[in-house]
Amino acid sequence: MSAVLSPEPLTKDAFAPFGDVIEMAGAHHYPINQGTTERYHNLANVDVASQDGQPLISIFRGQPRPMPIELVLMERHPLGTQAFYPLQDRDWLLVVSVASDPRDIDGLRAFRATGVQGVNYARNVWHHPLLVLEPDSDFLIVDRGGPGDNLEEVLLPEGVTLEAGQSA
Amino acid sequence: MSAVLSPEPLTKDAFAPFGDVIEMAGAHHYPINQGTTERYHNLANVDVASQDGQPLISIFRGQPRPMPIELVLMERHPLGTQAFYPLQDRDWLLVVSVASDPRDIDGLRAFRATGVQGVNYARNVWHHPLLVLEPDSDFLIVDRGGPGDNLEEVLLPEGVTLEAGQSA
Repeated sequence: MSAVLSPEPLTKDAFAPFGDVIEMAGAHHYPINQGTTERYHNLANVDVASQDGQPLISIFRGQPRPMPIELVLMERHPLGTQAFYPLQDRDWLLVVSVASDPRDIDGLRAFRATGVQGVNYARNVWHHPLLVLEPDSDFLIVDRGGPGDNLEEVLLPEGVTLEAGQSA
Repeated sequence: MSAVLSPEPLTKDAFAPFGDVIEMAGAHHYPINQGTTERYHNLANVDVASQDGQPLISIFRGQPRPMPIELVLMERHPLGTQAFYPLQDRDWLLVVSVASDPRDIDGLRAFRATGVQGVNYARNVWHHPLLVLEPDSDFLIVDRGGPGDNLEEVLLPEGVTLEAGQSA
């Protein structure tokens, strides 16, 4: 079996079943700091408090995989959301699943984000680990720390690959 | 009266009384995602849960002020930490106070951060609103939403200015 995924552009509407797109475009904003700063307010539904959870701020440094990318596994976090925001203005890739079992490869959806788009995966949303297109691509992460097992992983069938697609 | 502040380089040690420096340098890190990602783990002590608070992710877009910068007021957040991380690799400036009353200008301390350094202001730490050096300088913010008054401001005496200092 083989399947090739092609990413679609990341938009709030298309990503809504999976969480939030963190971006200034279209966001509610207002001036603060004597007019010298514009606040683009509350761009994600952070949900990390269950079972004595607390928010963590971390940085992930990602490395690209060979193209086309062989998709090996999917993961999800049952106890908390996980937000990614790019620290360089570089496109990056996401894969999520609309199916309850991500091994149902017909349910996989791929997105290409710009370098000014982050995402916040909702709890229990199956997603592929970070996929970047250039070496040393850094992301600020807001996810959950605390007790409990917050990681589930499943192996995908062999032969599922992802193309990079085109810059928006 | 007049006073001119000159920033010192931002370091974890120097900033420790005021909160966390969010940076990869010196941080605990370990590989994840089949070795394709390095996680620089838990870089800030986020503390936003008091009085039914919750973490917010926002973006601030800052504009520079005329140089030298006239410092007009200081603020603090009694109910939660506030983290700033730059989204462009540009130096930026911070002013905090070691005094219980920031109008005691002898207590003011200024720092120049690099574009790969963020900070997380601890609760109740007096700090100046965002100070950037270039137009449209964006920061990812993690702070507190929820009930209660989480902002205090005090006006500084006239005549306190800040130099930009030198890039590290």
